[in-house]
Amino acid sequence: MKLIKDINFLIVGLGLLGGSYAKGLKNIGFKVDAITKCQEDIDFAVANKIIDRGTTKIDSEIIGNADVVVFALYPHIFIDWVRENQQYFKSGAIITDVTGVKGEIVDTVQSILRNDVEFISAHPMAGKEVSGVKNADPSIFKGANYIVVPTEKNSEGAIELCKNLGKMLGFRRVSTLSVVEHDKMIAFLSQLTHCIAVSLMCCADTEGMEKYTGDSFRDLTRIARINDEMWSELFLSNKADLLSQMEKFKATFDELYEKIKSSDREGMREMMRCSTERRGLFDKE
Amino acid sequence: MKLIKDINFLIVGLGLLGGSYAKGLKNIGFKVDAITKCQEDIDFAVANKIIDRGTTKIDSEIIGNADVVVFALYPHIFIDWVRENQQYFKSGAIITDVTGVKGEIVDTVQSILRNDVEFISAHPMAGKEVSGVKNADPSIFKGANYIVVPTEKNSEGAIELCKNLGKMLGFRRVSTLSVVEHDKMIAFLSQLTHCIAVSLMCCADTEGMEKYTGDSFRDLTRIARINDEMWSELFLSNKADLLSQMEKFKATFDELYEKIKSSDREGMREMMRCSTERRGLFDKE
Repeated sequence: MKLIKDINFLIVGLGLLGGSYAKGLKNIGFKVDAITKCQEDIDFAVANKIIDRGTTKIDSEIIGNADVVVFALYPHIFIDWVRENQQYFKSGAIITDVTGVKGEIVDTVQSILRNDVEFISAHPMAGKEVSGVKNADPSIFKGANYIVVPTEKNSEGAIELCKNLGKMLGFRRVSTLSVVEHDKMIAFLSQLTHCIAVSLMCCADTEGMEKYTGDSFRDLTRIARINDEMWSELFLSNKADLLSQMEKFKATFDELYEKIKSSDREGMREMMRCSTERRGLFDKE
Repeated sequence: MKLIKDINFLIVGLGLLGGSYAKGLKNIGFKVDAITKCQEDIDFAVANKIIDRGTTKIDSEIIGNADVVVFALYPHIFIDWVRENQQYFKSGAIITDVTGVKGEIVDTVQSILRNDVEFISAHPMAGKEVSGVKNADPSIFKGANYIVVPTEKNSEGAIELCKNLGKMLGFRRVSTLSVVEHDKMIAFLSQLTHCIAVSLMCCADTEGMEKYTGDSFRDLTRIARINDEMWSELFLSNKADLLSQMEKFKATFDELYEKIKSSDREGMREMMRCSTERRGLFDKE
């Protein structure tokens, strides 16, 4: 299958990410339908030309019409949805997702899925502190990373299609990782950072502190404004990796603490030089 | 003394902050001289109309001409400078600073200073990851906080002048804290955040990870690109407060770790709701 303009997309879950996918794909010229739980979101998305058609029901015609289905749902809802509704997929359809942890999802969905439908998993590393289709904005993909997470069950064609989807949506770098590599990487790069931000925001009574703060505190706590339902699910579905990354961070933080305590200035400076050098690679272009 | 356009300013230390003060003050119409260690920085600043005159020497005429002197030097250099050169200050001059930790500085400078010169300390909560007068940019003050740190030795007039300086430079909020309150606040809002960023950047081998990262990791490590000479000095000059804030953070981080480990989903969500609610107050307008 090639990514050509007459491919029909279906977005399941029209939130910030699902909505941004829809808007980006519509802008390119694809036909985009959506299934989501609130009629209000459908109405908004149709009125704003983010989708062509939408429904809050399980509509066999809309599902069966889709060549590519993008799931932008909470992990456990995604699995249940596939289990209950996969009979409606078109034969040969490709399904993909945006889920932040792959361990449980990819194995489960690939093992329960019909043989004539293929699931190729992906993780768009983009987001915002606001949610909902009303904030949908495909420009969040610009400069961002997109990770395709194939398994041995995936075909070259589906992997290629998934990579092309990332490129078309405007992601800067499209790369691949195995499920195990992905979850370890994400535990460090994304989940650990959210744990740090939440802890920093909770560890002191910050009332009135906004009058004195600088950008460093603002930057470190931007993601402390967090969807507690989704992130608690993500943390628990990647518990072993996350705990191990938290332990690593704690050990290094303790090392710095001891250096400050013992006034080991050269030791502190060495850590600072290491962090300065490494950080240089992470700027967005 | 009033802040009127015929006041002469002297900036000592023409780096990013000193240069941004100079440029901001020149833009308003003040006369601004500078003393700094590199002739190249003077040449650049004069050529770009950031200052009127500058020198790398201890020039008694330039020092004696200044009504307000702003010190933007490393803490220990600041104290030595005042000790060695205060005989050149004009009688009635006001001196201020941008130092990030106040405990040692304010007491020392106020106790060694001539009786006819007044030191009123301030902390502009603004910066950038780049340094030097070539990056001077008074727009870094827009939306930022400015903290005046008076003691019982300060006059109402000098406190008022220092507050006006912050307002004129474009800071969004000008407030006052005592030396003790300031250093405690800064240990939490600024120094702890830098410790976290450095530890996060150092705790794992991040080679190649830039391909997979999202904005959360970028945001949390932006300040991991750090001036090791300056920050190690700041950390050590506020050691007790910083260690105590690091301990608080560690305790909360451990609490979250235990909640994840024991799959206490409701406990995790409670912390996330707390962080979400508190973070709302910290956005820049």
